[in-house]
Amino acid sequence: MKKIVLIGSGNVATNIGVALKKKGYKIMQVWSYSLKNAKILANKLDCNFTSSLSKLMHADLYIISIKDDNIIQLLENIPDIPIVHTSGGIGMDVFKKKFNTYGVFYPLQKFKKNMEIKFKNIPILIEANNNSFKDELINIANQLSKQVLSINSKEREQLHIAAVFASNFSNHMFSIAYDILKKSNLDFKLLLPIIKETINKLDNNNPSNLQTGPAKRKDKKVITSHLNNIENNDRKEIYKMISNAIIRENE
Amino acid sequence: MKKIVLIGSGNVATNIGVALKKKGYKIMQVWSYSLKNAKILANKLDCNFTSSLSKLMHADLYIISIKDDNIIQLLENIPDIPIVHTSGGIGMDVFKKKFNTYGVFYPLQKFKKNMEIKFKNIPILIEANNNSFKDELINIANQLSKQVLSINSKEREQLHIAAVFASNFSNHMFSIAYDILKKSNLDFKLLLPIIKETINKLDNNNPSNLQTGPAKRKDKKVITSHLNNIENNDRKEIYKMISNAIIRENE
Repeated sequence: MKKIVLIGSGNVATNIGVALKKKGYKIMQVWSYSLKNAKILANKLDCNFTSSLSKLMHADLYIISIKDDNIIQLLENIPDIPIVHTSGGIGMDVFKKKFNTYGVFYPLQKFKKNMEIKFKNIPILIEANNNSFKDELINIANQLSKQVLSINSKEREQLHIAAVFASNFSNHMFSIAYDILKKSNLDFKLLLPIIKETINKLDNNNPSNLQTGPAKRKDKKVITSHLNNIENNDRKEIYKMISNAIIRENE
Repeated sequence: MKKIVLIGSGNVATNIGVALKKKGYKIMQVWSYSLKNAKILANKLDCNFTSSLSKLMHADLYIISIKDDNIIQLLENIPDIPIVHTSGGIGMDVFKKKFNTYGVFYPLQKFKKNMEIKFKNIPILIEANNNSFKDELINIANQLSKQVLSINSKEREQLHIAAVFASNFSNHMFSIAYDILKKSNLDFKLLLPIIKETINKLDNNNPSNLQTGPAKRKDKKVITSHLNNIENNDRKEIYKMISNAIIRENE
């Protein structure tokens, strides 16, 4: 299973393509809606490119890394070749109707096209509709990462939800903090030491044991004063709701 | 201003006391509600201890580090000696009625008694009711930290609110993620690489430019599916509310 076609040319496709090529896999072709983007990635990978699904080359494996919403529609025009998607948010059954051999190859990380990330520490979550294909996918994943795990679609959905809280929503908390400080002409960098300390402790602790702050202390005076000093209504509601959740959790 | 009395024996008092002693300050005495706790810290600092406010020793500076809620009441029985509190959540005016020389010495970090933290990178926020006292406080802070800033009570309140979002609330997001994974028998460690990547980018970016995820993409199919798969009602509401805030922010 050495010859691979990449369907997609975005952040995930780019990072996976580059990492696989380094490990000796032959990326045959890149497909993208945009011929220009297909070409940019194909140049990196030294391979063929196309924006026409009818011109997809034969290969051992198709890796489809496009926006979740577009996957189903695209699959209609892709030949029945062993195939995986790379999405945390889509079940494996999306392939069921049409494909014989299919699975999921989900690297749990944020990717950016222009920022190469070392795969070694990125968990890769594998699922497949038959064991021999699963073994092949695990074999590929093991060459990229030291953290490879086989999980089913239901587990992957829970993992994806957890990642939304841990990464997307925590980032939104940082974003709110940034804006609050900006309005007071204070530098967000003031918060970096406390943010980093919050993260450093996660390696060896259940985060609920690390919870601190006014809500954890049930310090209603401070909570009320904070609420009176938050202008934006969305943020006021978020402050209230998360504080109440922390308070309830400790009751 | 070399002789200091610590009023309080908790996480902040302990860390400040140890750091000041290292820099050559003479900690005269530790007061605590609990004589036992006062003694534990006094042993570390090689000084007197008491649980009686009437036995407070004379000193150049009193540093009061106790629970926010208890400060006002305690101040009634403290003599008029130059004094600071160390709280992000309390204004400087708390001292106004009774004291001549007062201020705030707020180290922006989470402290634990048993975990010594290097002060060098911890921002210390200073406020004082007169300039010469402010200079003295800045002088002390500069010996502990390379990030010392003079701000007023209103700015400190905003900074404290921002810290609640950036540290306490992001920790609650990690805590929710931990629980979700635990219910699926998945290891929270799977999320550490994506959490660390989220943080690493903060050094040089406005976090709102780093936002990713279903809400950022307005991917309502994934959002709906996630909401259907979150059992806990508090968490469902938090998911909905933060997603909506991210969506609105990008409109």
